Amino acid sequence: MARRVAVIGAGSSGLTCIKCCLEEGLEPVCFESSDDIGGLWRFKEIPEPERSSTYRSLVTNTSKEMMCFSDLPMPAHFPNFMHNSQLLQYLQLYAAHFNLLQHIHFQTTVLTVKQRPDFACSGQWEVLTEDRDGLKKIHIFDAVLVCTGHYTKPVMPLKDFPGFETFKGEYCHSSEYKDPEPYKGKKVMVVGIGNSGGDIAVELSRVAKKTFLSTRQGAWVLSRISLKGRPIDMIGVTRLLGLVTLLLPRRLVNWACERELNQKYDHRLYGLMPKNRFLDQRPLVNDDLPGCILLGGLVIKPNIQEFQGSNVVFEDETVEEQIDTVIFCTGYTHNFPFLSTSLFTGPSFNLTLYKHVLPPMLEHPTLAIIGLIEAWGPIMPVVEMQARWATRVISDLKYTPLILGVRPNILRLLLTDPRLGFSVLFGPCTPYQFRLRGPGKWAGARNAILTVWDRVSKPMMTRVVPEPRPSRLPKLLVLSTLLKSVIAVLLKLNKKI
Amino acid sequence: MARRVAVIGAGSSGLTCIKCCLEEGLEPVCFESSDDIGGLWRFKEIPEPERSSTYRSLVTNTSKEMMCFSDLPMPAHFPNFMHNSQLLQYLQLYAAHFNLLQHIHFQTTVLTVKQRPDFACSGQWEVLTEDRDGLKKIHIFDAVLVCTGHYTKPVMPLKDFPGFETFKGEYCHSSEYKDPEPYKGKKVMVVGIGNSGGDIAVELSRVAKKTFLSTRQGAWVLSRISLKGRPIDMIGVTRLLGLVTLLLPRRLVNWACERELNQKYDHRLYGLMPKNRFLDQRPLVNDDLPGCILLGGLVIKPNIQEFQGSNVVFEDETVEEQIDTVIFCTGYTHNFPFLSTSLFTGPSFNLTLYKHVLPPMLEHPTLAIIGLIEAWGPIMPVVEMQARWATRVISDLKYTPLILGVRPNILRLLLTDPRLGFSVLFGPCTPYQFRLRGPGKWAGARNAILTVWDRVSKPMMTRVVPEPRPSRLPKLLVLSTLLKSVIAVLLKLNKKI
Repeated sequence: MARRVAVIGAGSSGLTCIKCCLEEGLEPVCFESSDDIGGLWRFKEIPEPERSSTYRSLVTNTSKEMMCFSDLPMPAHFPNFMHNSQLLQYLQLYAAHFNLLQHIHFQTTVLTVKQRPDFACSGQWEVLTEDRDGLKKIHIFDAVLVCTGHYTKPVMPLKDFPGFETFKGEYCHSSEYKDPEPYKGKKVMVVGIGNSGGDIAVELSRVAKKTFLSTRQGAWVLSRISLKGRPIDMIGVTRLLGLVTLLLPRRLVNWACERELNQKYDHRLYGLMPKNRFLDQRPLVNDDLPGCILLGGLVIKPNIQEFQGSNVVFEDETVEEQIDTVIFCTGYTHNFPFLSTSLFTGPSFNLTLYKHVLPPMLEHPTLAIIGLIEAWGPIMPVVEMQARWATRVISDLKYTPLILGVRPNILRLLLTDPRLGFSVLFGPCTPYQFRLRGPGKWAGARNAILTVWDRVSKPMMTRVVPEPRPSRLPKLLVLSTLLKSVIAVLLKLNKKI
Repeated sequence: MARRVAVIGAGSSGLTCIKCCLEEGLEPVCFESSDDIGGLWRFKEIPEPERSSTYRSLVTNTSKEMMCFSDLPMPAHFPNFMHNSQLLQYLQLYAAHFNLLQHIHFQTTVLTVKQRPDFACSGQWEVLTEDRDGLKKIHIFDAVLVCTGHYTKPVMPLKDFPGFETFKGEYCHSSEYKDPEPYKGKKVMVVGIGNSGGDIAVELSRVAKKTFLSTRQGAWVLSRISLKGRPIDMIGVTRLLGLVTLLLPRRLVNWACERELNQKYDHRLYGLMPKNRFLDQRPLVNDDLPGCILLGGLVIKPNIQEFQGSNVVFEDETVEEQIDTVIFCTGYTHNFPFLSTSLFTGPSFNLTLYKHVLPPMLEHPTLAIIGLIEAWGPIMPVVEMQARWATRVISDLKYTPLILGVRPNILRLLLTDPRLGFSVLFGPCTPYQFRLRGPGKWAGARNAILTVWDRVSKPMMTRVVPEPRPSRLPKLLVLSTLLKSVIAVLLKLNKKI
């Protein structure tokens, strides 16, 4: 009989877990507390407690070809960076394509997940659920995949701001922010320069009277638009660059990346300069932030020292007066109220996980936490890989090596299928690359890899201009570079004197 | 007795004309039909006929140090690119600083400007005005400066769009567009890719259901943010670059500029590629357009072929259905209803002007049209120069050479004041450079030129991070460039195969 696996949550992680269970011959039963799939990506007009919540304008900061699941490319006509509603659409497509909906019990909340008394020998779990009518039920499962996400519990460190109790204005956490309209004509202080903080500050700066963005750390800011206008992750996340980064000294990589970013806009001049080096801090992805700063709509400020009524005093002793609203974009922490506290260690109840997935203290690897990871690149393919591995572990009932056999053999590819080999080595490291061979091999992977740039240009080339005659001036490149260097030197001279 | 000069309009051109009249010892009398100064830059909630009108979010597309009048730098704390309300504030400062308000008759409309019967000998004009109470009055003036601007009469070429009479949705000209809110959730077609078209399309794409931008010509798109995040006009408008552009073959300059722009984002991939070369077409200034295209909120379309009810058919035979609103961003034409038709020539009543200022058919150079010019760079300093010249011509009553004596003598500067000379030659060609010597010389000009970068950084460096230790890695520049080239070649190889 197939092993029964509980999947808690039907967001992007839950969906791919259901699919991986089916692929491994497991029987998934998914419990979703809300009435639909999508999790984080299903926009809610009103934030709901214990559920992740986003703002209306949220757009993905990784591109469609890099963030899709590995065996279902996004529709070609989708834009390269998608509005949250489009990502939800993709998840609906994924669920329909792999027939996942039938495995989901909606409006069913998981209250507790406990080891059965015979766990030491069976590895089984007892899951207590409550449905929409308040009916409670106990289920027995051979394994449990926790897919409730890590953006559920807002963090608002009010105690870190002396005098906050004297603040007379309104305040909220970014999870409560939906639209900029309520802030029209107000003086708003955004605290924290994560991706939410950047997005919200930019959006507010277009309607608010004045918008401040206070940051202790600063940030290296990347645009979604990279070389020749292509998506940044498609240029930055390649096997070759990964290799180069690995081989070169860290200091050199930091120096080169920071220099490149400062060429676009001097992070010091723009008040963004972080205290950490490039590789030591997750960069902020934002296309509009520098423009908002240059146009004066958005003012970057250092860390807040204290609140004095409606005034805010910063660490550089400047004061901004009459602040109407403070929005704390100070992040989230994960929250697993249904798990036994025995899984958490130390005085601050940390969750230690082997390979970010499996609690190592259990006798059997039958509980996995999926999606509890901060990736530099797209998160969905990482989560899918976690799910592939976890379901394989559950299926084997032992610690199988990390998805052995799905990493492409580049040397072999270069020899047997050089076109594909070159694309895999030099091109964007798309999720499809992990479906070329091994368990879960997908016949469409090769084609998906070779047509990746077609799907990039499809939604954009909506006004086609005939190709020009080939230029007879290519050699002038040298001249132009020379000229540029001369001008750069002269400009530098001019700045110096 | 001082010659009396009528100045028609108290926008930016009118104000500097009043000031130049005073400088030349003329007696200005300014007639302004509205109740305040500022013209175009005074935002009107409701568009008024025969008066220029802008949208609420309009920001200057030239920077404060390049677009100010030559003897009054903008306040240092002003952002580098200003919201229209801030530019109005500057004009108010200018009027106050030079005591200009006392010369303005508000709510006084000029109905006709006619040559007096003895014009051949006197060069005088008869100006008929009407005040707020409907009282008409005839004035005699020795000269007239027309400062009513060229953004007064909207152009809406409906006849160029077959089937437009069948269109069921709403439509308007960009001059009637104020805010994006009314377009929330609608499908909007923006026609024309001038600066208004670009701004409006970007703004709408954030709230509309779908925004299309139809363009016949396409455009080269410049960001306000240039090298290291400095204002584009401060990097692009320098004497050195001007000289280089002049000396190099036009084709080479076009090729180099286009290559640079396409490196940032491939204009072909983004559907923006214009039919004209870079130097043959005024570029579009827009920071957000490429991002909106990449994120799918904005879709570029070719020229409209015809309307079919609510559907729009394009020249590439694609169709967009159920368009709710069309906004024609199809520009303006100038309009001088008070001038005699005898000044206009040819069947289409063109206004021929010597040096873009003086109608050449008059016996006396006592009528000047100020501000009727399309400049590649900032317009206000150009207008000011026109005003300086026109008032000098009126003062001399003969065609004085074009402001002789105010252009800086660079060779002399390099020898006598090398720091200043270098700044003038290699630095941004700021308006202050034309106040270093000659008529209208301003003692503050030298200091204004030398402190230009301080005023650039003043509004931005609101979070100061200590300078790092000097890097010991400067030589790695070579290595990094080499590395970059290798990666570029490999990427190209990957695209080719």
